[in-house]
Amino acid sequence: MATAPIFTPRDPNFAARVRASFDAQPLMGFIGAVLVSVEPGRCVIELPYRPELAQQNGFFHGGIVGTLADNAGGFAGYSLMAPEAGVLTVEYKLNLMAPAKGERLVAEGAVLRSGRNLVVSRAEVYVLGEAGKIHCATMQQTLMTMHGKGVA
Amino acid sequence: MATAPIFTPRDPNFAARVRASFDAQPLMGFIGAVLVSVEPGRCVIELPYRPELAQQNGFFHGGIVGTLADNAGGFAGYSLMAPEAGVLTVEYKLNLMAPAKGERLVAEGAVLRSGRNLVVSRAEVYVLGEAGKIHCATMQQTLMTMHGKGVA
Amino acid sequence: MATAPIFTPRDPNFAARVRASFDAQPLMGFIGAVLVSVEPGRCVIELPYRPELAQQNGFFHGGIVGTLADNAGGFAGYSLMAPEAGVLTVEYKLNLMAPAKGERLVAEGAVLRSGRNLVVSRAEVYVLGEAGKIHCATMQQTLMTMHGKGVA
Amino acid sequence: MATAPIFTPRDPNFAARVRASFDAQPLMGFIGAVLVSVEPGRCVIELPYRPELAQQNGFFHGGIVGTLADNAGGFAGYSLMAPEAGVLTVEYKLNLMAPAKGERLVAEGAVLRSGRNLVVSRAEVYVLGEAGKIHCATMQQTLMTMHGKGVA
Repeated sequence: MATAPIFTPRDPNFAARVRASFDAQPLMGFIGAVLVSVEPGRCVIELPYRPELAQQNGFFHGGIVGTLADNAGGFAGYSLMAPEAGVLTVEYKLNLMAPAKGERLVAEGAVLRSGRNLVVSRAEVYVLGEAGKIHCATMQQTLMTMHGKGVA
Repeated sequence: MATAPIFTPRDPNFAARVRASFDAQPLMGFIGAVLVSVEPGRCVIELPYRPELAQQNGFFHGGIVGTLADNAGGFAGYSLMAPEAGVLTVEYKLNLMAPAKGERLVAEGAVLRSGRNLVVSRAEVYVLGEAGKIHCATMQQTLMTMHGKGVA
Repeated sequence: MATAPIFTPRDPNFAARVRASFDAQPLMGFIGAVLVSVEPGRCVIELPYRPELAQQNGFFHGGIVGTLADNAGGFAGYSLMAPEAGVLTVEYKLNLMAPAKGERLVAEGAVLRSGRNLVVSRAEVYVLGEAGKIHCATMQQTLMTMHGKGVA
Repeated sequence: MATAPIFTPRDPNFAARVRASFDAQPLMGFIGAVLVSVEPGRCVIELPYRPELAQQNGFFHGGIVGTLADNAGGFAGYSLMAPEAGVLTVEYKLNLMAPAKGERLVAEGAVLRSGRNLVVSRAEVYVLGEAGKIHCATMQQTLMTMHGKGVA
C-alpha cells in the first residue's frame, strides 16, 4: 500500500476553512455527520447510526457510505488548497467490501497526489459495531481545484 | 454509445418486487425519492429538491446524486433477478459532469450485461431546472446476485 | 442509456490531427492496432488477434483491452480539442464483461461531456469471433485538455 | 491510508502457482515484464523501458501502465486462492497521476479484502528514472474467484 505523503498546507487557516465549508453543507447536518479532524491532506468524518439512513436490512445505505467517503476525500483535498480556491469532485469510485452494519461510520480521507489543478485522494470507511471495527468500503477519487472563479 | 440490451425477466412479478425493496429502504423516504418506473433491466428514480439535500452552493449534494445513481442501477439489475435472489452493489464509479442545480433529479438506471453472478449497469443522472434538463452525472456499476442465502 | 451528443469540432483538421497522434504512439504499431475512423467526439480502433497479446487462455489480455479502450476514448476527446491543445488521460474505469476470445477487438470511443478543461468519455469494446460480436468490455474515462503548455 | 492486511495463503505452493500463471501469459514476455516477487496477497511486477511501449512523448503508454497494474493486483489476489481456482478481473479503475517517464516501471499489487467470491485489491505504479522514484499511477480493482469450472 502507498503511504500517504506529508503535505504542507498553502493556507495556515486550512482547518477553519474546511470546517466552515463542512458546516455550510446542509446535508451533513441533515444526516448527522460530524467533522472529527482535519490535518493537511487528511480529513475524518463520523456518522452515528439512525434508522432513516438504512437500506432494507437496517444497515447504513451504500449511498450514505459513498456520501461520507466523497466528503472525507474532498475535504482532505480542500485542506491543501489556497484560501480563495474551491474544490469540485470530478469523479469517485467506491468498493463496498462488507455490510455497513453497526452503530457508527468513520470515513478517513487522505490525499495521494496534489497537483496544480487535479488532486487524487482516497477514503477508507469503517463501521463500528458489535463485530468491532470493520473496513466496509474503499474509495479512489479525483478532485479539481477551482482557482478563483474558474469553471471546470 | 452502447444500446442497452432487451432483457426477459426471470420473475414475472419483478416490478412489484423492486417496488417492495425500494419501499423497504428507509433512506429513500427520508430524502423523498420516488420510484418512477421499472422495466426489465431498467429503473427510473426521481428526487424533488429540498434544501437539506444541498451542498454549500445550494445544489444537490454529490452524495445524493451518487445515492440515486447507485439505486437506479441497482434496482435495474434487481429487476432481472430470480424471486429469491438478493442484490448487492459491489462497486460503482460516478463522474459528476455538471452542477446538480435545479428542482428535481432524475436517475435512469440500465443493465448493460447480466451474468449468472455479476451484473454490469449504468445510470445517467439529469437535473431539471431553469436551464432545462442537464446531464449532470454518469455512473458505471458492478452488482452481485445473492443466490438464496449466499454471501459475497 | 445516454445518447452521445453531437459535437462541432474546434479544429476542422481534427481527423488528420488525431491520425498523426495515433501514428506517433509506438505502442499502437507494436501491437498492430489500426485507427479505423474518427468523427467529432468519436473514434474507432481495431486490433487483429496475435498470440503475443494473449493471457493464459489464449484470449486478448485485459491490459490490451484496456489499452484499446483508453485510446479510443482519449482520441474521441482529442478530436474535439483546439489545434494547439494536448490530451491527457486523468483516469479510467474498465469493466471486463466477457472473455475477449476472438479474432479481432473493436473499441468504440465516444465523448459524453466536453468541458473547458475536463472531458468525460466512454468506450465499448467488442470482440469478433466464432461467437459473433460480443460486447466484452465497457469503460468510463476522464480526460484533461492541456491548453498550450499547461500541466495538470 | 489503509494498511494492507496480513493474509494466510490457502495454497502453500502459491508462489509457484502465480509464477506459472505469469509465465503462461504471452503478453508479459512480449512487453518484457518480470515477476519480481510474490507474497501472500502481494505481488510486484517490473518492466524495463523499451521504445515500442511508448506514447507520443516517449513515456510509457498509459495502457502499459494499466496492464502492469491490472496484473500486479490480479496476481496478488490469485496468490490467496485455492490451488484449483482461477482468477478473473471484474473491473479496475486507474488514476494516471504523473507522466510515466523513466527507465523502469514497478507495479506493486496488494489485496485489501479477500472474500469468498470477490477480492478487492490495489496497485501502485512507480516509474524510476532521472527524477527518482515517482508514484505515477494508482489502481483500485475487483477480482472474482473462479471456483473450479465456475463462470462469472
